Amino acid sequence: MHTTHDLTREDCARLLGAGVVGRVAISTPNGPHIVPVNYSVHDESVLVRTTAYSLLGTYGRDAWLCFEIDHLDHEHESGWSVAVRGRATFVTDLDELASLGRGWGPRPWAAGQRTLVVRIPWTEVTGRRLGAGADPSQHLPVQRPA
Amino acid sequence: MHTTHDLTREDCARLLGAGVVGRVAISTPNGPHIVPVNYSVHDESVLVRTTAYSLLGTYGRDAWLCFEIDHLDHEHESGWSVAVRGRATFVTDLDELASLGRGWGPRPWAAGQRTLVVRIPWTEVTGRRLGAGADPSQHLPVQRPA
Repeated sequence: MHTTHDLTREDCARLLGAGVVGRVAISTPNGPHIVPVNYSVHDESVLVRTTAYSLLGTYGRDAWLCFEIDHLDHEHESGWSVAVRGRATFVTDLDELASLGRGWGPRPWAAGQRTLVVRIPWTEVTGRRLGAGADPSQHLPVQRPA
Repeated sequence: MHTTHDLTREDCARLLGAGVVGRVAISTPNGPHIVPVNYSVHDESVLVRTTAYSLLGTYGRDAWLCFEIDHLDHEHESGWSVAVRGRATFVTDLDELASLGRGWGPRPWAAGQRTLVVRIPWTEVTGRRLGAGADPSQHLPVQRPA
Protein backbone atom coordinates (compact mmCIF):
# COMPACT_ATOMS: atom_id res chain seq x y z
CA MET A 1 0.00 0.00 0.00
CA HIS A 2 1.28 3.41 -0.88
CA THR A 3 0.19 6.86 -0.02
CA THR A 4 -1.20 9.37 -2.43
CA HIS A 5 0.35 12.81 -2.71
CA ASP A 6 -1.15 15.83 -4.37
CA LEU A 7 1.01 17.46 -7.02
CA THR A 8 1.49 21.22 -6.97
CA ARG A 9 0.06 23.31 -9.78
CA GLU A 10 3.67 23.91 -10.92
CA ASP A 11 4.29 20.16 -11.16
CA CYS A 12 1.04 19.72 -13.05
CA ALA A 13 1.92 22.55 -15.48
CA ARG A 14 5.34 21.01 -16.12
CA LEU A 15 3.83 17.59 -16.86
CA LEU A 16 1.12 19.08 -19.05
CA GLY A 17 3.70 21.08 -21.00
CA ALA A 18 5.90 18.02 -21.58
CA GLY A 19 3.21 15.65 -22.82
CA VAL A 20 1.64 15.29 -26.25
CA VAL A 21 -1.04 12.63 -25.86
CA GLY A 22 -3.88 12.51 -23.38
CA ARG A 23 -7.59 11.86 -23.05
CA VAL A 24 -10.67 14.02 -23.03
CA ALA A 25 -13.84 13.07 -21.17
CA ILE A 26 -17.05 14.54 -22.50
CA SER A 27 -20.58 14.14 -21.22
CA THR A 28 -23.17 13.37 -23.88
CA PRO A 29 -26.92 12.74 -23.68
CA ASN A 30 -26.18 9.00 -23.44
CA GLY A 31 -23.39 9.22 -20.88
CA PRO A 32 -19.69 10.08 -20.73
CA HIS A 33 -17.11 9.15 -23.35
CA ILE A 34 -13.30 9.10 -23.24
CA VAL A 35 -11.44 10.13 -26.38
CA PRO A 36 -7.64 9.76 -26.77
CA VAL A 37 -6.17 12.91 -28.31
CA ASN A 38 -2.97 14.63 -29.33
CA TYR A 39 -2.76 17.97 -27.61
CA SER A 40 -0.76 21.11 -27.19
CA VAL A 41 -0.51 23.64 -24.38
CA HIS A 42 -0.98 27.38 -24.93
CA ASP A 43 -1.55 30.10 -22.31
CA GLU A 44 -2.71 27.73 -19.55
CA SER A 45 -5.09 25.97 -21.88
CA VAL A 46 -5.09 22.55 -23.50
CA LEU A 47 -5.65 22.66 -27.25
CA VAL A 48 -7.04 19.71 -29.17
CA ARG A 49 -7.73 19.41 -32.87
CA THR A 50 -10.79 17.56 -33.96
CA THR A 51 -13.46 17.47 -36.67
CA ALA A 52 -16.85 19.10 -36.68
CA TYR A 53 -18.65 15.75 -36.75
CA SER A 54 -16.72 14.13 -33.88
CA LEU A 55 -18.03 13.73 -30.33
CA LEU A 56 -15.98 16.77 -29.29
CA GLY A 57 -17.22 18.75 -32.27
CA THR A 58 -20.82 17.79 -31.59
CA TYR A 59 -21.00 18.16 -27.80
CA GLY A 60 -17.85 20.10 -26.86
CA ARG A 61 -18.83 23.70 -27.52
CA ASP A 62 -19.18 25.61 -24.25
CA ALA A 63 -19.30 22.28 -22.42
CA TRP A 64 -17.33 21.48 -19.29
CA LEU A 65 -14.63 18.98 -20.29
CA CYS A 66 -11.99 16.99 -18.44
CA PHE A 67 -8.55 16.39 -19.94
CA GLU A 68 -6.21 13.84 -18.38
CA ILE A 69 -2.63 12.61 -18.74
CA ASP A 70 -0.99 9.95 -16.63
CA HIS A 71 1.84 7.52 -16.24
CA LEU A 72 0.69 4.36 -14.50
CA ASP A 73 3.38 1.77 -13.82
CA HIS A 74 1.73 -1.37 -12.57
CA GLU A 75 4.95 -3.29 -12.04
CA HIS A 76 6.23 -0.77 -9.51
CA GLU A 77 2.78 0.21 -8.28
CA SER A 78 3.58 3.83 -8.81
CA GLY A 79 2.52 6.56 -11.12
CA TRP A 80 1.01 9.98 -11.49
CA SER A 81 -1.97 11.60 -13.11
CA VAL A 82 -2.92 15.16 -13.93
CA ALA A 83 -6.45 16.29 -14.77
CA VAL A 84 -7.57 19.65 -16.14
CA ARG A 85 -11.20 20.73 -16.14
CA GLY A 86 -12.74 23.78 -17.71
CA ARG A 87 -15.47 25.04 -19.98
CA ALA A 88 -14.33 24.40 -23.55
CA THR A 89 -14.53 26.88 -26.38
CA PHE A 90 -13.98 26.49 -30.10
CA VAL A 91 -11.22 28.72 -31.44
CA THR A 92 -12.75 30.50 -34.42
CA ASP A 93 -10.72 33.70 -34.71
CA LEU A 94 -8.65 33.37 -37.90
CA ASP A 95 -5.65 35.29 -36.56
CA GLU A 96 -5.63 33.20 -33.42
CA LEU A 97 -5.91 29.98 -35.43
CA ALA A 98 -3.00 31.06 -37.63
CA SER A 99 -0.92 31.89 -34.57
CA LEU A 100 -1.73 28.56 -32.94
CA GLY A 101 -0.95 26.76 -36.19
CA ARG A 102 2.58 28.09 -36.20
CA GLY A 103 3.25 26.93 -32.67
CA TRP A 104 1.43 23.65 -32.95
CA GLY A 105 3.89 20.85 -32.29
CA PRO A 106 2.36 17.45 -32.69
CA ARG A 107 0.36 16.72 -35.79
CA PRO A 108 -2.59 14.38 -35.42
CA TRP A 109 -1.76 10.75 -36.11
CA ALA A 110 -5.11 9.88 -37.57
CA ALA A 111 -6.01 10.83 -41.11
CA GLY A 112 -8.78 13.31 -41.89
CA GLN A 113 -9.13 17.06 -41.82
CA ARG A 114 -9.04 18.19 -38.20
CA THR A 115 -9.80 21.83 -38.65
CA LEU A 116 -11.65 22.41 -35.40
CA VAL A 117 -9.53 23.57 -32.45
CA VAL A 118 -11.02 23.03 -28.99
CA ARG A 119 -9.57 25.00 -26.09
CA ILE A 120 -9.91 23.68 -22.54
CA PRO A 121 -8.79 26.32 -20.02
CA TRP A 122 -7.02 25.19 -16.84
CA THR A 123 -9.84 26.36 -14.60
CA GLU A 124 -9.30 23.36 -12.35
CA VAL A 125 -5.95 21.57 -12.23
CA THR A 126 -5.40 18.54 -10.02
CA GLY A 127 -2.54 16.07 -9.92
CA ARG A 128 -1.72 13.06 -7.83
CA ARG A 129 1.31 10.90 -7.32
CA LEU A 130 1.10 7.28 -6.20
CA GLY A 131 3.98 5.34 -4.73
CA ALA A 132 6.92 6.52 -2.69
CA GLY A 133 9.93 8.29 -4.10
CA ALA A 134 8.80 8.51 -7.70
CA ASP A 135 9.86 11.68 -9.49
CA PRO A 136 7.14 12.51 -12.00
CA SER A 137 9.63 14.13 -14.38
CA GLN A 138 11.37 10.77 -14.79
CA HIS A 139 8.24 9.29 -16.26
CA LEU A 140 7.04 11.85 -18.71
CA PRO A 141 4.88 10.50 -21.51
CA VAL A 142 7.45 11.92 -23.90
CA GLN A 143 10.28 14.37 -23.47
CA ARG A 144 9.42 17.23 -25.77
CA PRO A 145 12.56 19.05 -26.93
CA ALA A 146 12.82 22.45 -25.24
CA MET B 1 -0.71 10.51 -41.38
CA HIS B 2 -2.01 7.09 -40.51
CA THR B 3 -5.32 5.43 -40.86
CA THR B 4 -7.52 4.36 -38.01
CA HIS B 5 -8.76 0.79 -37.78
CA ASP B 6 -11.55 -0.50 -35.62
CA LEU B 7 -10.63 -3.38 -33.35
CA THR B 8 -12.89 -6.40 -33.16
CA ARG B 9 -14.74 -7.16 -29.95
CA GLU B 10 -12.43 -10.17 -29.53
CA ASP B 11 -9.37 -7.92 -29.73
CA CYS B 12 -10.94 -5.52 -27.25
CA ALA B 13 -11.78 -8.35 -24.85
CA ARG B 14 -8.21 -9.65 -25.03
CA LEU B 15 -6.75 -6.23 -24.30
CA LEU B 16 -9.21 -5.60 -21.47
CA GLY B 17 -8.40 -8.99 -19.94
CA ALA B 18 -4.66 -8.35 -20.06
CA GLY B 19 -4.64 -4.89 -18.50
CA VAL B 20 -4.76 -3.84 -14.88
CA VAL B 21 -4.88 -0.04 -14.93
CA GLY B 22 -7.29 2.21 -16.79
CA ARG B 23 -9.47 5.27 -16.41
CA VAL B 24 -13.11 5.84 -15.63
CA ALA B 25 -15.03 8.86 -16.87
CA ILE B 26 -18.00 9.91 -14.80
CA SER B 27 -20.44 12.74 -15.36
CA THR B 28 -21.17 14.86 -12.30
CA PRO B 29 -23.38 17.90 -11.78
CA ASN B 30 -20.34 20.09 -12.49
CA GLY B 31 -19.07 18.24 -15.54
CA PRO B 32 -17.14 15.09 -16.36
CA HIS B 33 -14.16 13.75 -14.40
CA ILE B 34 -11.50 11.18 -15.28
CA VAL B 35 -10.27 8.89 -12.52
CA PRO B 36 -7.31 6.50 -12.95
CA VAL B 37 -8.14 3.08 -11.48
CA ASN B 38 -6.90 -0.43 -10.99
CA TYR B 39 -9.40 -2.84 -12.45
CA SER B 40 -10.25 -6.45 -12.98
CA VAL B 41 -12.40 -8.21 -15.57
CA HIS B 42 -15.17 -10.61 -14.63
CA ASP B 43 -17.98 -11.97 -16.83
CA GLU B 44 -17.72 -9.24 -19.49
CA SER B 45 -17.69 -6.51 -16.88
CA VAL B 46 -15.01 -4.18 -15.59
CA LEU B 47 -14.71 -4.19 -11.80
CA VAL B 48 -13.25 -1.26 -9.91
CA ARG B 49 -12.76 -0.88 -6.18
CA THR B 50 -13.40 2.48 -4.64
CA THR B 51 -14.63 4.16 -1.48
CA ALA B 52 -18.11 5.33 -0.63
CA TYR B 53 -17.03 8.97 -0.47
CA SER B 54 -15.16 9.04 -3.80
CA LEU B 55 -16.53 10.51 -7.03
CA LEU B 56 -17.41 7.00 -8.21
CA GLY B 57 -19.03 6.20 -4.88
CA THR B 58 -21.01 9.42 -4.90
CA TYR B 59 -22.16 9.59 -8.52
CA GLY B 60 -21.51 6.11 -9.92
CA ARG B 61 -24.51 4.13 -8.77
CA ASP B 62 -26.76 3.26 -11.74
CA ALA B 63 -24.92 5.90 -13.78
CA TRP B 64 -23.65 5.38 -17.30
CA LEU B 65 -19.83 5.23 -17.08
CA CYS B 66 -17.02 5.00 -19.59
CA PHE B 67 -13.90 2.93 -18.87
CA GLU B 68 -10.83 3.28 -21.08
CA ILE B 69 -7.43 1.66 -21.56
CA ASP B 70 -4.87 2.62 -24.17
CA HIS B 71 -1.30 2.43 -25.32
CA LEU B 72 -0.28 5.65 -27.05
CA ASP B 73 3.23 5.70 -28.48
CA HIS B 74 3.98 9.21 -29.62
CA GLU B 75 7.43 8.42 -30.96
CA HIS B 76 6.08 5.93 -33.47
CA GLU B 77 2.76 7.71 -33.87
CA SER B 78 0.93 4.51 -33.23
CA GLY B 79 -1.22 3.07 -30.52
CA TRP B 80 -4.54 1.63 -29.59
CA SER B 81 -7.41 2.41 -27.26
CA VAL B 82 -10.37 0.43 -25.98
CA ALA B 83 -13.43 1.98 -24.36
CA VAL B 84 -16.23 0.24 -22.51
CA ARG B 85 -19.49 1.94 -21.68
CA GLY B 86 -22.35 0.69 -19.57
CA ARG B 87 -24.64 1.46 -16.68
CA ALA B 88 -22.69 0.86 -13.51
CA THR B 89 -23.96 -1.04 -10.50
CA PHE B 90 -22.55 -1.43 -7.01
CA VAL B 91 -21.90 -5.05 -6.08
CA THR B 92 -23.59 -5.52 -2.72
CA ASP B 93 -24.32 -9.25 -2.58
CA LEU B 94 -22.01 -10.71 0.10
CA ASP B 95 -21.50 -14.04 -1.68
CA GLU B 96 -20.68 -12.28 -4.92
CA LEU B 97 -18.25 -9.93 -3.16
CA ALA B 98 -16.53 -12.90 -1.52
CA SER B 99 -16.27 -14.69 -4.86
CA LEU B 100 -14.87 -11.59 -6.56
CA GLY B 101 -12.44 -11.11 -3.69
CA ARG B 102 -10.90 -14.50 -4.28
CA GLY B 103 -10.37 -13.84 -7.95
CA TRP B 104 -9.29 -10.25 -7.58
CA GLY B 105 -5.77 -9.91 -8.91
CA PRO B 106 -4.39 -6.43 -8.49
CA ARG B 107 -4.66 -4.79 -5.13
CA PRO B 108 -5.19 -1.05 -5.12
CA TRP B 109 -1.96 0.95 -4.93
CA ALA B 110 -3.40 3.74 -2.88
CA ALA B 111 -3.97 3.37 0.82
CA GLY B 112 -7.43 3.45 2.34
CA GLN B 113 -10.29 1.02 2.65
CA ARG B 114 -11.76 0.45 -0.80
CA THR B 115 -14.70 -1.67 0.09
CA LEU B 116 -17.05 -0.54 -2.66
CA VAL B 117 -16.97 -2.59 -5.87
CA VAL B 118 -18.33 -0.89 -8.99
CA ARG B 119 -19.26 -3.08 -11.93
CA ILE B 120 -19.33 -1.61 -15.44
CA PRO B 121 -20.89 -4.07 -17.91
CA TRP B 122 -19.54 -4.22 -21.47
CA THR B 123 -22.75 -2.93 -22.98
CA GLU B 124 -20.77 -0.95 -25.54
CA VAL B 125 -17.21 -1.96 -26.49
CA THR B 126 -15.20 0.03 -29.01
CA GLY B 127 -11.55 -0.17 -29.90
CA ARG B 128 -9.31 1.61 -32.35
CA ARG B 129 -5.83 1.10 -33.64
CA LEU B 130 -3.72 3.96 -34.99
CA GLY B 131 -0.69 3.51 -37.19
CA ALA B 132 0.12 0.79 -39.67
CA GLY B 133 1.29 -2.67 -38.76
CA ALA B 134 1.09 -2.34 -35.01
CA ASP B 135 0.02 -5.50 -33.20
CA PRO B 136 -1.92 -4.44 -30.12
CA SER B 137 -0.83 -7.54 -28.19
CA GLN B 138 2.78 -6.35 -28.43
CA HIS B 139 1.93 -3.24 -26.46
CA LEU B 140 -0.19 -4.47 -23.63
CA PRO B 141 -0.16 -2.26 -20.54
CA VAL B 142 1.14 -5.26 -18.65
CA GLN B 143 1.27 -8.95 -19.44
CA ARG B 144 -0.80 -10.60 -16.78
CA PRO B 145 0.39 -14.16 -16.15
CA ALA B 146 -2.12 -16.67 -17.51
